[in-house]
Amino acid sequence: MEFTGTGIGQGVAVGTTVRMPDPLPEPHTASSTRTPAEEAERAGTSMSAVARDLEERGEKAGGTASDVLEAQAMMAEDPSLMQLVMQATDAGKTAERAVYEAFASFRDQLAAMGGYLGERAADLDDVSQRVIAHLSGVAAPGVPQPDEPFVLLARDLAPADTALLDLDKVLALVTSDGGPTSHTAILAREKSIVAMVGTANALTIDDGTAVIVDAAAGTVTTDPSADAVADARARIAEREQTASAPVTPGALADGTPIPLLANLGSGDGAAHAVELGAEGVGLFRTEFLFLDAGDTAPSVDEQTEHYVRVLSAFAGKKVTVRVLDAGADKPLPFLNDADEQNPALGLRGLRALRAREGILRDQLAALAAADAQTEADLWVMAPMVSTVEETEYFVDLAHEFGLKTAGIMVEVPSIALLAKRAFAASDFASIGTNDLTQYTLAADRLLGTVASFQDPWHPAVLQLIGAVGQAGAEAGKPVGICGEAAADPLLAVVLVGLGATTLSMSPSALADVRLSLARFDGDAAQHLAQIACDAADAASARAAVTDAASSLQKD
Amino acid sequence: MEFTGTGIGQGVAVGTTVRMPDPLPEPHTASSTRTPAEEAERAGTSMSAVARDLEERGEKAGGTASDVLEAQAMMAEDPSLMQLVMQATDAGKTAERAVYEAFASFRDQLAAMGGYLGERAADLDDVSQRVIAHLSGVAAPGVPQPDEPFVLLARDLAPADTALLDLDKVLALVTSDGGPTSHTAILAREKSIVAMVGTANALTIDDGTAVIVDAAAGTVTTDPSADAVADARARIAEREQTASAPVTPGALADGTPIPLLANLGSGDGAAHAVELGAEGVGLFRTEFLFLDAGDTAPSVDEQTEHYVRVLSAFAGKKVTVRVLDAGADKPLPFLNDADEQNPALGLRGLRALRAREGILRDQLAALAAADAQTEADLWVMAPMVSTVEETEYFVDLAHEFGLKTAGIMVEVPSIALLAKRAFAASDFASIGTNDLTQYTLAADRLLGTVASFQDPWHPAVLQLIGAVGQAGAEAGKPVGICGEAAADPLLAVVLVGLGATTLSMSPSALADVRLSLARFDGDAAQHLAQIACDAADAASARAAVTDAASSLQKD
Repeated sequence: MEFTGTGIGQGVAVGTTVRMPDPLPEPHTASSTRTPAEEAERAGTSMSAVARDLEERGEKAGGTASDVLEAQAMMAEDPSLMQLVMQATDAGKTAERAVYEAFASFRDQLAAMGGYLGERAADLDDVSQRVIAHLSGVAAPGVPQPDEPFVLLARDLAPADTALLDLDKVLALVTSDGGPTSHTAILAREKSIVAMVGTANALTIDDGTAVIVDAAAGTVTTDPSADAVADARARIAEREQTASAPVTPGALADGTPIPLLANLGSGDGAAHAVELGAEGVGLFRTEFLFLDAGDTAPSVDEQTEHYVRVLSAFAGKKVTVRVLDAGADKPLPFLNDADEQNPALGLRGLRALRAREGILRDQLAALAAADAQTEADLWVMAPMVSTVEETEYFVDLAHEFGLKTAGIMVEVPSIALLAKRAFAASDFASIGTNDLTQYTLAADRLLGTVASFQDPWHPAVLQLIGAVGQAGAEAGKPVGICGEAAADPLLAVVLVGLGATTLSMSPSALADVRLSLARFDGDAAQHLAQIACDAADAASARAAVTDAASSLQKD
Repeated sequence: MEFTGTGIGQGVAVGTTVRMPDPLPEPHTASSTRTPAEEAERAGTSMSAVARDLEERGEKAGGTASDVLEAQAMMAEDPSLMQLVMQATDAGKTAERAVYEAFASFRDQLAAMGGYLGERAADLDDVSQRVIAHLSGVAAPGVPQPDEPFVLLARDLAPADTALLDLDKVLALVTSDGGPTSHTAILAREKSIVAMVGTANALTIDDGTAVIVDAAAGTVTTDPSADAVADARARIAEREQTASAPVTPGALADGTPIPLLANLGSGDGAAHAVELGAEGVGLFRTEFLFLDAGDTAPSVDEQTEHYVRVLSAFAGKKVTVRVLDAGADKPLPFLNDADEQNPALGLRGLRALRAREGILRDQLAALAAADAQTEADLWVMAPMVSTVEETEYFVDLAHEFGLKTAGIMVEVPSIALLAKRAFAASDFASIGTNDLTQYTLAADRLLGTVASFQDPWHPAVLQLIGAVGQAGAEAGKPVGICGEAAADPLLAVVLVGLGATTLSMSPSALADVRLSLARFDGDAAQHLAQIACDAADAASARAAVTDAASSLQKD
């Protein structure tokens, strides 16, 4: 039987399934036999103990995992949560029940916010389970630890789970819930674990079932044939060889350089990206600085310090920094209006920065200061630009601050259609394929019921990318791709054929893309791009290009 | 001084301002000296009295106004509202305070829903004020009735106000709040009243100020010069002449017919549309049938009866019916998921119908039955189509039901970019410029903070329309426009130049558009279209076309 979902990366795994244990039973509602003060104290003690435990796990895990575990530790001791718990114990409830209800109420509020924050609801559930387990004196449900390597099946993994996975034992992760921005997906990418998220009905697969998990194809196959297993093992061997191949700069078979860059969300991953062959940074997101800062924007000095750290890791290399992209699924209290009916179509990105220009000016000042102290080649770009006037506004302002290379993200159809005029004002363009696909197809990229529309292989999206590529070539200006589309090895070739001059992606995807580009020359890439644009839909574009590629590639 | 806002239609007015009186003071919070039962009875009596009054006004007003007044009458006697009121009187509050709080709580819930429903919040406020006025024995705040004609300034008008406006006295309506879908806008269109909505700071204009209200330009000018007044009066005279000109079929100066059709939201306006020269219906919305039906879809028989009524009014003429377009700002409980984070990018239009195919099949069956009983030329089309596959799905299904002419709305950039392939499957296309602009610029068309992006003159939008027009011409298939863009007389010429073969609009706009088309031949229209597409932004497209048009038009 075959189950379909969203593959993370290009990995393949063959193994036997193990299911995450079911969550603890719901605490009973009968009144406590202890006094409210005793129950409140029990709850407080367990919440603190769990917070300490999560902090320790965070220190052990390091990297992004450390951040999320620390965030969970803070949730475990959140004073407003504790207040809710005490209200419930005051009403005669047990500590277990009080914790259960208080966390559930916070969880529902978070889930109702949807998007990035909604996907954090699983983190709260996990903390709640840990506190209740501690209160009940039982082990917290978590990652099973069998002796043999296994494929883990779960509803959705909490950060604490994925952070402590024993990589030697976990062949692949398969979740029934969660999307491409869930923690499972983010951490799987970072740790290069084969993973499938949003795999409907995955939990109907029995423990101990033999499966092939094919992230590239987006499938989980149960009880596969011997041929299918042999084929999968051959692909696994090939991928291992690729990963251990010497790291060379990205280039087509004819030698045309296509610099391969990294997408980074903080300075932490910089060294690892360089190791994997990143020739610079194509997208450095700056939201984390602002999300961490709370109710106000961080100061120019604080920002400068962070930018200096990142730029120092890439001396002599290009680092493309995107100014703050708040709004949509990443609202900030001091920038965005929480009451927007369609935040993805709201006052987000550059629109929001322009409405609070002081924040933008501070960020540009900090970037200019960091640039002066370091040796990297700093490029800056604005998110969510939809008009030529906005392009001129941002590029002029950045130049005014002494930043020499300033450009725009192309995520909105209107600016792709006016690319020629945009290049007259902009030093470069970087195409964000995720949002561009979302707007071109008018389908929310975080909404499961319309997920089938979110495919960057759609010929309409490719036509827009081609229009930007052509305008860039005519103007003699660089066109980067920084959406996840660049991480698809075959689509990467098509994107180069459409005029992309650099590709930026999660560092774990670099090896696959490097190998794929080396198999085609420029003419072949353009030929494949034309085939994709002429297709009727995303599936037939992918199929037609796959067919044509197999007869074209230079091995 | 000049105030800007959203003009409704093309009208101009010169006059003196009168402000709507301020609302009643907030009822005091002191406990009642009456018993709870007495206060509850007082509240009930006043709520019933106001309901009766609103019903009577509804009967007098007729048309759409009658529907909204009846809806308000139902709000005044809503049992859940009454329950909230009684809870408050039970707690010792006065009837005035209880009514105030209960309505405010309902109002906030409605406002939080945003979009169409959010704009209904003003209706509840109005009912609340009327009940409190009745309780207090004072006159309800409402439309002033001075002896001389005047320009009415208000925050937002309630249906009861606009329905009872004395047209001979009201020269123009100017509101500070409300958007193009507010009641003020809807009723101003229906009654052809010069109107400006969303006019920021309009309430700072003093009573008795001389103003020019120019809906075409979207401006209110205070203390205008004598020249400006003379110019405005000349335009008013010209418009009066146009309105009384004989009604002829729409055509360019060279005789090329461009049928001018009506957008209708129910069967009520059919006769009036024919009177104003509508040569058919370019967009018949069917949402009202389903919104009225409550928790389930109306039966095939009920629907058939409605469609027969509309088709009968247009014997021998084209009637284009759009199947149910639920979702976004018009959610239906049995079709849409209220928890979508970005409903405009959600499971709406054809996507939602496909997920509940029974509803679509019932509607097509009812349309086929109505077609068989009547003499109109019935065309059917699907909203929110984004792929070629969806086009094929809908057109095939409609043909299967015996509906001979089936097509799609072009509202999503992807299908405009794939227009050539869409026409291979579709009998015709109709471009919805409002949504197409919203998605192309990625700006919510109901959100004030991004309203400046919602301009169908944007060259990116016009390029997409041009792509559809060209594909239609190559396929020899009709391309209609049914967004409000078609109601802008000069933009209408550009749309024809881009390949539109019919234009559909609010019936009140037909005369202006008819006159404008007759001033240009086909070559001129194409020339103007090219000028608009080559512009950098919406404002310069409009300005460049206005300039070029004044030297081209054949008077």
